[in-house]
Amino acid sequence: MSSRVDGVRPIRRGKVWLVGAGPGDPELLTMRAHRLLASASVVAYDELVPPEVLAIAPASAERIPVGRRARGCRHHEARIHPLIVERALEGKDVVRLKGGDPFVFGRGGEEIEELAAARVPFEVVPGISAALGAAAAAAIPLTHRECAAGVTLVTAHAAQAGDGVEAEDDLLASIPREGTLVFYMGLGRLEETCAALVAGGRSPETPAALVSKATLPDERLVVGTVATIAARAREADLEAPALLVVGEVVARRVESPALAEDAPTRVAR
Amino acid sequence: MSSRVDGVRPIRRGKVWLVGAGPGDPELLTMRAHRLLASASVVAYDELVPPEVLAIAPASAERIPVGRRARGCRHHEARIHPLIVERALEGKDVVRLKGGDPFVFGRGGEEIEELAAARVPFEVVPGISAALGAAAAAAIPLTHRECAAGVTLVTAHAAQAGDGVEAEDDLLASIPREGTLVFYMGLGRLEETCAALVAGGRSPETPAALVSKATLPDERLVVGTVATIAARAREADLEAPALLVVGEVVARRVESPALAEDAPTRVAR
Repeated sequence: MSSRVDGVRPIRRGKVWLVGAGPGDPELLTMRAHRLLASASVVAYDELVPPEVLAIAPASAERIPVGRRARGCRHHEARIHPLIVERALEGKDVVRLKGGDPFVFGRGGEEIEELAAARVPFEVVPGISAALGAAAAAAIPLTHRECAAGVTLVTAHAAQAGDGVEAEDDLLASIPREGTLVFYMGLGRLEETCAALVAGGRSPETPAALVSKATLPDERLVVGTVATIAARAREADLEAPALLVVGEVVARRVESPALAEDAPTRVAR
Repeated sequence: MSSRVDGVRPIRRGKVWLVGAGPGDPELLTMRAHRLLASASVVAYDELVPPEVLAIAPASAERIPVGRRARGCRHHEARIHPLIVERALEGKDVVRLKGGDPFVFGRGGEEIEELAAARVPFEVVPGISAALGAAAAAAIPLTHRECAAGVTLVTAHAAQAGDGVEAEDDLLASIPREGTLVFYMGLGRLEETCAALVAGGRSPETPAALVSKATLPDERLVVGTVATIAARAREADLEAPALLVVGEVVARRVESPALAEDAPTRVAR
C-alpha cells in the first residue's frame, strides 16, 4: 500500500458533534445525543455533565474533560480545547458534550467559529436547556396566555460585568418590562439581581422561584417573591447550579394530585 | 369478585404525561418521551406533531387529535380536550404530545390547571423548543459572549392582540433593548413585527433570519436584516411554521466546512 511506502496518505477529517446533554437527568437526552454518545470513540465534556450521562459512552472511549476547572490557566477559557481539534484532524469523530443546550449560554457559537477556522466539519445537536428542564420539573409554565407572552433567558453574569449602576444598566438592557425571566447561574449575585429588578420597575411582590439541581435526584425548589427569594435561598442553603425564575407564572405553579389508589369509587363498566 | 356482583370497584386514576415532542425531527425526542410514546395506550396530539413522531406509538394505541383545527367550534381552545380527562378517570395513562416544549407557548400551564382541578395526576416532560431546534439546525448561536447576554422567546401573537400603537406597545413590553429575539409563528405579521422593532429602537440593519420547518427534511433558511427580511421571506415563499430570529447572533452563523474526503494530505503516523 502506498501509504506504507511513503508514509503519506489522505486522512478524512473527523467531525465534531456539539451535543446538548440536557439539564442532568440522562432520560432527558435526545435520541440523537444518546445514539452519538453510545457509539462515541472520543468524548469531550464539561463539568456540568453528570457522571450518569457520561457513563452512556463506551468504556473504551477516550474521555477529555474540558470544563473551566480542567482548563486551569493553560489557555483562555473562550477557546475550544486543542485536543478536540487535534482528534478531528487525526480523522476521529468527536462528541463534544455540553450541559443543557450548546447555543444557550453554552459558548457553542465560539466553538463552531474555531472549528470552521480549523476546517473541521461540525454539527450541532440541541439539548433541553436548564430553564425548560427546571420549569417542567417544578411545574412552572414559562409562558401563559394570561400573564406571560414571552420568556427571557439571561445570565446573572450580565450583572457581573461591572459594578453598581453600570452592571444594573447592563442587566436591565437584557430584560423586558413584562414576561417571564429566567436567570442562569442565579445564586452568585442573587441580592444584586433582585435589587436591579426592583430598580428597573418590577414589583418587589413579583413571584420568584429558585430551582437547584433541576431534574436531578437532589433537586430542590424555593418559592418566594423578588423581595424575599434571596433570604429564603440563604436559609435553605441551596446549592449551585440553580436557576432563578421571576414572573407571575411562578404563582401559576400547579402541584400534581397524588397518584392515589384510593381514588373515589366509581361504577365500573 | 365483588366488582362483578355490585358493578362497583375502586378505579385507580390514570396519569397524564404532558410530553414535549420537540421541533419535528423524531431523533430530537428525549429518551423519556420516546419511551412513553412507544408504550402508550392513549396518545392525544397537536397538529404540529409530525406523523413520523406519532408513528412511534403502538398501532393499537388510541389516537386523539386535539389541535385547534380538530377542536373546531366545539369548545374553547384554551380548554384541555375532554377525552384526555375522561380516559384518565377511566384509569388509563395518557400521553399528551405537544410540539416543542409544553411550557413554551404550548399552553401546558392551562392544561395542568385543568388536570389538577379534575384531580388527575400529571407529569411534564420537557421538549426541545422550536427556537433551540432552529438555532442548532441553522448554526445560529442564540447567545454569544460578544453580542448577546440573553435570548427572549416571544410570540408574534403579542403583536396581534390589538392593532397599531397598542399592539406595538404590547410587543415592545415583551422584548428587551438588547439581546437575541426569537418570534414564534413569525410569518403571520412579519412586516408589523419588524416595523415595531424599528419603532422601538432596534436598528433596521439588525441581522434577522427566518427558519421554516426547522429540523424537518424541507427546512429552509432565509437571512437578511430587520429592514429586508419580510420582503425576502415573501420572495422565497416560506411556509409556516417559521421562526424569526433577530439579533447580532444571526451574523455569527457559521457554515460547517464540508465533510470532504479530499482533505489535505497529511503524514500518517
